[in-house]
Amino acid sequence: MHKEYHVTGSETIRDIVIGMSDGLTVPFALAAGLSGAISSSGIVVTAGIAEIVAGSIAMGLGGFLAGRTEVDHYNSELKREYEEVDRVPEQEKAEVKTVFAAFGLSESLQQQVADEMAKDKDKWVEFMMRYELGLEEPQANRATRSAFTIGVSYIVGGIIPLSPYILVENSVTALYYSCLVTLISLFVFGYFKSKLTGQPALSGAVKVVFIGALAAGAAFLMARLINNG
Amino acid sequence: MHKEYHVTGSETIRDIVIGMSDGLTVPFALAAGLSGAISSSGIVVTAGIAEIVAGSIAMGLGGFLAGRTEVDHYNSELKREYEEVDRVPEQEKAEVKTVFAAFGLSESLQQQVADEMAKDKDKWVEFMMRYELGLEEPQANRATRSAFTIGVSYIVGGIIPLSPYILVENSVTALYYSCLVTLISLFVFGYFKSKLTGQPALSGAVKVVFIGALAAGAAFLMARLINNG
Repeated sequence: MHKEYHVTGSETIRDIVIGMSDGLTVPFALAAGLSGAISSSGIVVTAGIAEIVAGSIAMGLGGFLAGRTEVDHYNSELKREYEEVDRVPEQEKAEVKTVFAAFGLSESLQQQVADEMAKDKDKWVEFMMRYELGLEEPQANRATRSAFTIGVSYIVGGIIPLSPYILVENSVTALYYSCLVTLISLFVFGYFKSKLTGQPALSGAVKVVFIGALAAGAAFLMARLINNG
Repeated sequence: MHKEYHVTGSETIRDIVIGMSDGLTVPFALAAGLSGAISSSGIVVTAGIAEIVAGSIAMGLGGFLAGRTEVDHYNSELKREYEEVDRVPEQEKAEVKTVFAAFGLSESLQQQVADEMAKDKDKWVEFMMRYELGLEEPQANRATRSAFTIGVSYIVGGIIPLSPYILVENSVTALYYSCLVTLISLFVFGYFKSKLTGQPALSGAVKVVFIGALAAGAAFLMARLINNG
């Protein structure tokens, strides 16, 4: 009934929104920071694009490799559980009982459950994987696709705050337009991000805007401080 | 036996390592990218510090707010489960049975487990939270501390690739030193990061170095391309 997680159809949309709202924040703040120190938009654009390239690779490739590591980890633990179920079945049964003891089941019922579960080795191992080790079978392709989608969305998101600097030569003028389009975009993406992860949408949108504005403001002040120092 | 997760003592160390290896990657790549386009180290330092400020706020504050949202979400679901257990107990019992049906337990044993679990309302609700909804009670202070530690470590990590630019006036010369200290640091932090998350340490270290080098190389080429275009 209240399973707002694992809405498979919208997972790609969720990745797009996550990548975009992250992509909006850091390049926006970096460009704002540089505008506080440098009057030429050209350098701001160069720095912004370098950041977008670096950030999307770190995020996309990092996510991809983490996904592969997770698959390896799951498979090695799975092999181990199958071995243990063969080698020390009584000990594994005791572990099943421990899980249920924690939920207040009687000793005799714990034993019955463990005995019955032991009849189907695959389901027994699956139970141990999920409830003893807390591991769910990772979807290998899913992680790759997710990392790619987030990386690309980061690029698209990052281009939004940068575009005024491409169009307007003076960096301080460009900053005003950048603030306008980015804060509106952050609000929209924060709203959908919260909706899709089952959180209150309006307060979620305000939080995303707040983080972006604070990061940009702090970067601006810091860059100005360094350049006047 | 093989519970390499939740090693409480080293959680802070893990956060430090995660924040630092991330902090090393993006500011390193940004500085490398700018070196491909601008010969003065001063601008590279300004941009790098603006990025560090923006990234640490986005990461730290983002993590803090996400942690608070998670606590709110858990509490509202908890309230709902308590209400449902009171209002539609038979339906909730059927949900308990569904969990066990998936593991091949017989109908009669499913019923016994559901009946016995229903005797202790707290444990019943805890079971539903964990195994039906997949939610574990979040530790509120833990999330705050974790976000703070990661944010600060991001700053410390980011200063490593930037320090050569602070010391050496010519940005291309500074880039050589930055590559040297950063790639070594990425290897060391990648090694510990993998160790602490229970992954193969050497291949994990190589992956972290690879991501950093690729991000920096791509940012360098891209920035050079824009400036010559």
